[in-house]
Amino acid sequence: MNIKLTTDEVFPIEGDQDIYRALKKAGIYISASCGGRGLCGKCKVRIIEGDCEVISYGNLPAKEREQGIVLACKTLAKGDLLIEIPKQSRLMVGDKIALSNAESLQDYFKGYGVEITPLVRRVHVELPPPTLSDNISDLDRLERRLQEMGLSPMRFSHGFVSTMAETMRLSNWSFDINYIEDDHCLRQAIFLTSEGFCNRRFGIAVDIGTTTVVAYMVNLLDGSLVDSGSTYNSQIRYGDDVITRIVYAAEGNGLGDLRNAVIEDINNIINAIREKHNISRCEIDSVVIAGNTTMSHLFWGLNPASIREEPYIPTVNRFHLWRASSARLAINPQSPIYTMPCVASYVGGDIVSGVLASKMHRSPEIALFMDIGTNGEIVIGNNEWLMTAACSAGPCFEGSGISSGMRATKGAIEEVTFDPINGEPSLKVIGDAHPLGICGSGMIDALSGFYINGIINQKGKFIPEKSKRIREGENGMEYVFYADPQTGREITLSEVDIDNLIRAKAAIYAGINTLLNEAGLSIDMIQRVYIAGGFGNYLNVKKAISIGMLPDIEESKYSYLGNTSITGAYLALMSSELIKEVEDIASRMTYIELSVSAGFMDDYMSALFLPHTDIDRFPRVKSILQGM
Amino acid sequence: MNIKLTTDEVFPIEGDQDIYRALKKAGIYISASCGGRGLCGKCKVRIIEGDCEVISYGNLPAKEREQGIVLACKTLAKGDLLIEIPKQSRLMVGDKIALSNAESLQDYFKGYGVEITPLVRRVHVELPPPTLSDNISDLDRLERRLQEMGLSPMRFSHGFVSTMAETMRLSNWSFDINYIEDDHCLRQAIFLTSEGFCNRRFGIAVDIGTTTVVAYMVNLLDGSLVDSGSTYNSQIRYGDDVITRIVYAAEGNGLGDLRNAVIEDINNIINAIREKHNISRCEIDSVVIAGNTTMSHLFWGLNPASIREEPYIPTVNRFHLWRASSARLAINPQSPIYTMPCVASYVGGDIVSGVLASKMHRSPEIALFMDIGTNGEIVIGNNEWLMTAACSAGPCFEGSGISSGMRATKGAIEEVTFDPINGEPSLKVIGDAHPLGICGSGMIDALSGFYINGIINQKGKFIPEKSKRIREGENGMEYVFYADPQTGREITLSEVDIDNLIRAKAAIYAGINTLLNEAGLSIDMIQRVYIAGGFGNYLNVKKAISIGMLPDIEESKYSYLGNTSITGAYLALMSSELIKEVEDIASRMTYIELSVSAGFMDDYMSALFLPHTDIDRFPRVKSILQGM
Repeated sequence: MNIKLTTDEVFPIEGDQDIYRALKKAGIYISASCGGRGLCGKCKVRIIEGDCEVISYGNLPAKEREQGIVLACKTLAKGDLLIEIPKQSRLMVGDKIALSNAESLQDYFKGYGVEITPLVRRVHVELPPPTLSDNISDLDRLERRLQEMGLSPMRFSHGFVSTMAETMRLSNWSFDINYIEDDHCLRQAIFLTSEGFCNRRFGIAVDIGTTTVVAYMVNLLDGSLVDSGSTYNSQIRYGDDVITRIVYAAEGNGLGDLRNAVIEDINNIINAIREKHNISRCEIDSVVIAGNTTMSHLFWGLNPASIREEPYIPTVNRFHLWRASSARLAINPQSPIYTMPCVASYVGGDIVSGVLASKMHRSPEIALFMDIGTNGEIVIGNNEWLMTAACSAGPCFEGSGISSGMRATKGAIEEVTFDPINGEPSLKVIGDAHPLGICGSGMIDALSGFYINGIINQKGKFIPEKSKRIREGENGMEYVFYADPQTGREITLSEVDIDNLIRAKAAIYAGINTLLNEAGLSIDMIQRVYIAGGFGNYLNVKKAISIGMLPDIEESKYSYLGNTSITGAYLALMSSELIKEVEDIASRMTYIELSVSAGFMDDYMSALFLPHTDIDRFPRVKSILQGM
Repeated sequence: MNIKLTTDEVFPIEGDQDIYRALKKAGIYISASCGGRGLCGKCKVRIIEGDCEVISYGNLPAKEREQGIVLACKTLAKGDLLIEIPKQSRLMVGDKIALSNAESLQDYFKGYGVEITPLVRRVHVELPPPTLSDNISDLDRLERRLQEMGLSPMRFSHGFVSTMAETMRLSNWSFDINYIEDDHCLRQAIFLTSEGFCNRRFGIAVDIGTTTVVAYMVNLLDGSLVDSGSTYNSQIRYGDDVITRIVYAAEGNGLGDLRNAVIEDINNIINAIREKHNISRCEIDSVVIAGNTTMSHLFWGLNPASIREEPYIPTVNRFHLWRASSARLAINPQSPIYTMPCVASYVGGDIVSGVLASKMHRSPEIALFMDIGTNGEIVIGNNEWLMTAACSAGPCFEGSGISSGMRATKGAIEEVTFDPINGEPSLKVIGDAHPLGICGSGMIDALSGFYINGIINQKGKFIPEKSKRIREGENGMEYVFYADPQTGREITLSEVDIDNLIRAKAAIYAGINTLLNEAGLSIDMIQRVYIAGGFGNYLNVKKAISIGMLPDIEESKYSYLGNTSITGAYLALMSSELIKEVEDIASRMTYIELSVSAGFMDDYMSALFLPHTDIDRFPRVKSILQGM
């Protein structure tokens, strides 16, 4: 028997096997924090065709049951099945997209010219076994030797001491001690390892996005990428954007819910990769977390309430090295977790991480860095100074708040071109699959194509006579890109969607412009532009300029870097020297609060047109339009 | 309606009230880790007379139900009741006995001539509230101020930061920071307090004995004792002595069981005292634990296995300052716990604590200190040197392994004298209650009286014609002290019990003798003798000498100090200077391993007689016997 997915992939399933396990065997991971025991209700799939036996529906609401939704872990196939995996259910492991532009991470790391020096240091220790005449305690014996080795004083946590004696004896008094050294040269023992006992070394880099969570499992001995995984941030069920979640955190157990959601997401990815590659928990000895300020707070269970209220104060910007046990991550409980430092309430560790990944902080060139995720953050500067601001662009380029929106994974329309003769769209889909939705780069292409081809006007309203694909939909006028012959699912963009996109691009453009003014710079003084964000493999800069999202700067100055937050986290995981650079970047960044800037609001209002009320700011776009 | 106890106390009970709550209201505490919800099955009482309604028996075995045992929390009175509280069920709160000889702790502390400087330091901090132009994070704001105050660097744990922001705002940026400073002058923040929010200060001193757990709740502002509590160490259900428990710790979840048992005991006492005095968890900011090496390991969940096997190595002797959350104590989770340092596998923190309480380490006089608890530990020395050894005396003086044995609490026979005319015993009972059993001091009195009055011979065998109270019991010959007219309960000492007592006293004497030999000292060079142990209010030194347990030294040189382990823990709780003295005591103590000493074994064999095979060692006893 076979399972066919709506993305056209086909996998075998045995008679007594549930769908969850059959898919897992084929390398398709579905979120399930309970590990496939029918308890968490997360591994939802929709049966479109075929016979199956539902052992239990768990707590699935009647409405979902009627739509053919079942729990994959509690459903057996009785014949060939055609199923759809809802985008929220799918956990992407080994997903090329998560790697974005940093496919050769090792080479990228080498470009920094620093040694591999992970957070956790490992040193071999040999002890003389105890005798009746040398009968000091195990800990005293270890400290005596560390003093001889110049590694004293060292602090020993309760967790370290709890497992220490056993490893000493099993290793026959010959083992490695793993420790960290903090700012004040204080050493803290982490755990002992020995030949054949947790002696491989892995680390995890995590980017906690408001919409997407991405994790890399890295071999710390050579910097190679073991695997990557990504999933939607499950906090989405409590709100699409940062502000809604901060509000939710203040309700009842809201903070706990949000914290648990993201910790579960990360643990799901870690566990899936661990199982796939046979890595034990204890072999994961360090983690680097990069996220915006609110995500970093929620990850650590810190109340983000005051981030939202003037004067916008986070509890922590520079996080200390806390342990995996405090974070509740499913790795060695003693392992340290480095959290990328934040700069202000709306410029977080993901941006500091991105600056590290862009290298702009090392170069005398004046560069503009922008990360377009659920928010839009902007950094201008070079190796001498850095200024930063945040403009609340909203999550639409990551797929939220757009009717057919999705993040840049398999099945997402990432590129749209329009036939100049008949005006018909042609679509490029990630993974060459059947399209499931449209991601950020596809939206920009579509908006640009609509505008250049006169399908929408300067305000983003459809001109119905321009295409037979325009129709009156449930939420006003909309454009139909695709209708799936099997599922009937349609992929559309409505005027409401377009309005969202225009507001987002206006916020980004206004943010750039305001920050340039604050810095006393004009657009032509920018020597490099780095774009980061969840656009996937691809971002058509020309089209982004054409809709007035990006400033009209020569295209060759642009570099699209993909997810720089995860790349920076990877770099910090590999080198303590780069962690020092990260701390330096964060302390050098001057934050400008746009929400209290009058200039920003004016800029934003002017940018609510395609490409802008002042077309002279976009000379290249103007010449294209004039040439038509 | 009333409840009457077999100890003759009478308390009212209302119609709809369960026995557990009625007793609690009257200040009688019964162990119940579930808080009286019928879950833990620990609050057993025996109904002797009267009507009651049993709501649930929980998991009580049929055999116990037949004996009239019920769960106090699930049983309602339907009329007057006569009940018995088994000694294991009773949690003593406000028990005078636990205070032993240190009734005026504050005066005792003053005698050390040091200031009150508890482990946790408290300093007032005022912060300027954040503004748009001074918008650094809460933690940065705190660190900036601490630097101005000369208190930087300070480390901040995840637990500290989790609650920090709320207190800062509730206190209007005016609060106290509580921190500790360790050996290496490293400061660690513990928590914030403010006016009206956890700003009282309490600490807990705990003595974890193999048989008995005692805790003091202390007001850290003035050193006054708020209350004390004691209970049997529930680990007893896994074995009476240290060795049996070490063996049990190696089985399945044995280590976890033992750890949970003692943590529950301590938490039960803490919670009872907290409720009685309206103290909240967060107000308890430090704890000092004193216990023997195995008890200290079990308290921290450390496997004691290698303590038992040659070369007898503990995992830790000098414990670090770990937190209440790691210990699972029901107080402020951030509070530090100081564990009295151990010297060797069989000389633990209780002895180091006892030396502090004896002050022998401050005086040039050569003193002998001995703590007779479940083990017998001995220290000889003065302000220049200290030597120590342990002799496994067994737990009989604390009531274990003796058929009518009990610890020195209400209802225990603490003093026995024999009428010189008719040979009949007269009993003094703690609390002037009906006798429930016999404690250590009573056993010594009885043994001495038996021997001096010829009721037993030199080997401890009864001479039946000497008393009509001697009879053939279930386990051989026995002597009946008391038969309760209400319950029928008898208090006896059998030849098996006496054999246990003789072996215990022999081990103690042999230990003292061997250690004196090792130190090259004779008995007459001892200028002071300090006796510590769970004997309660009272120990008749003369009688202890007469049975050959204590060396035949002039009585005036002896001081009975009671429970010095808890007294030392109290002293350390009050002063960081005394903690330094404790560390110094531990590092100065030279440990002698008796179990590999041939001399000890010989001494022990010779001491298995009353008072000793070599009567010339006991000239005073000899003259008494000759005078008869």
